[in-house]
Amino acid sequence: MAQRIAIIGTGNVAWHLARTLENAGHLIVHIYSRDAAKAKNFGLDFFNASTGDSTDLRSVDAFIFIMAISDDAIQQVAQSLQLPENAVLCHTSGTRPLLDLGYASTEHIGVFYPLQTFSKGKRVDFSEIPICVEGDTQFAHESLTQLAHSISGNVQEVNSAQRKVLHLAAVFACNFTNHMFTISKEILENGNLNFDILKPLIAETLNKSFELGPENAQTGPAVRGDLETLDRQHELLTNQPELAEIYRQISQHIIDTYEE
Amino acid sequence: MAQRIAIIGTGNVAWHLARTLENAGHLIVHIYSRDAAKAKNFGLDFFNASTGDSTDLRSVDAFIFIMAISDDAIQQVAQSLQLPENAVLCHTSGTRPLLDLGYASTEHIGVFYPLQTFSKGKRVDFSEIPICVEGDTQFAHESLTQLAHSISGNVQEVNSAQRKVLHLAAVFACNFTNHMFTISKEILENGNLNFDILKPLIAETLNKSFELGPENAQTGPAVRGDLETLDRQHELLTNQPELAEIYRQISQHIIDTYEE
Repeated sequence: MAQRIAIIGTGNVAWHLARTLENAGHLIVHIYSRDAAKAKNFGLDFFNASTGDSTDLRSVDAFIFIMAISDDAIQQVAQSLQLPENAVLCHTSGTRPLLDLGYASTEHIGVFYPLQTFSKGKRVDFSEIPICVEGDTQFAHESLTQLAHSISGNVQEVNSAQRKVLHLAAVFACNFTNHMFTISKEILENGNLNFDILKPLIAETLNKSFELGPENAQTGPAVRGDLETLDRQHELLTNQPELAEIYRQISQHIIDTYEE
Repeated sequence: MAQRIAIIGTGNVAWHLARTLENAGHLIVHIYSRDAAKAKNFGLDFFNASTGDSTDLRSVDAFIFIMAISDDAIQQVAQSLQLPENAVLCHTSGTRPLLDLGYASTEHIGVFYPLQTFSKGKRVDFSEIPICVEGDTQFAHESLTQLAHSISGNVQEVNSAQRKVLHLAAVFACNFTNHMFTISKEILENGNLNFDILKPLIAETLNKSFELGPENAQTGPAVRGDLETLDRQHELLTNQPELAEIYRQISQHIIDTYEE
């Protein structure tokens, strides 16, 4: 069912989400930003949307109000908005609890969290993105679940405690993984080698990890208990004590994990 | 040009390599293992190959002898083999120097290192696997380079010092990355969530890292300098002090990397 939607915020997530919702047949009717010029600029892509910096949104004819703003601002902005009766208000944050919306002017609050990394200009296919939904009232929960199904085939019910866990897990699996690539690239460049040489190996590592489960796909000197290689590699990092320490810690954790 | 090849060793790498070489038109003429039964069993897949545990290989009509055995055994086995005149002997290790073959009975020694992770039963497409080649004589170098080109479109000249660096970089980019997935999966399961929920995000993280370069694709609380989130996530790990310490170390390293 097509919905009338207002967007609070003008960042990357706001833009990708608004675009995707519009493509799915919903109507973006209003854009709010504390910066009226930003709202107006954002609105250029959505011809049916009014824009503005007024927190009084009681006359906006929208049903669902989606806040895609920075984590720190959620509580304060939610509190300042005046919403139409029976409006559903949600935020899109992976880290903030539902109750950040506790002082909003509607009881129908929830979370609509697309579990993906968004970059400017890079198109995202929402159909496979998990959307994690939570609602404080049955009405909010059902409305947001329905909206999520309209853009994704992967809708998950995730409460605030689980979302916290999920975000921590994502930091390990994505942010830290990416940083391992950065470290690896730097090590290679110091040896006059190009990061490209590792790409097939990295791609296959990911395939194996998904196919067998990461705990069954571990390879390398630490899981083999090859202390001689561990020592020799640790020595190579003598001039970079922070890296040497990271190398030691992760290797030790691998050893401990597979000894049990 | 089709070559006559002998394989020293009967493990995963030996099998995948022998299979691939045969498919490329080369002839596997002999299998050596310290365990004659293993050599015989391995030989069943290669009808033209003789097999055995004799270290006297002078009568074996092969040109290139490929050692695919465990790192620790390379030096000792290389020393024990008696090879035909002008034979080329190489090992396939990412961690051991060329000079582990220094006491071999031929001067034409080299390294033929396929940079990939091999698992039993999982087919590998060699055509995109980087093969890192090194030769101690011009003759060994050219022979191994030619052989590498016959199975892969990605042949790299990598000397022993560079190969050490390469292996260290691979540990960060592959082994440690896989372990980050294992940690992440455990965190999720402790919160009654399934690792599958992260797969689209992980896949996109990899895409972005390859497309933009990992140093331009870093996201998350550490690179944002979001100390509040870092503290809250660190607290979630209070009961797992080793994980808490890994979280702290990598986050700090990300902060330091992007502060500069």
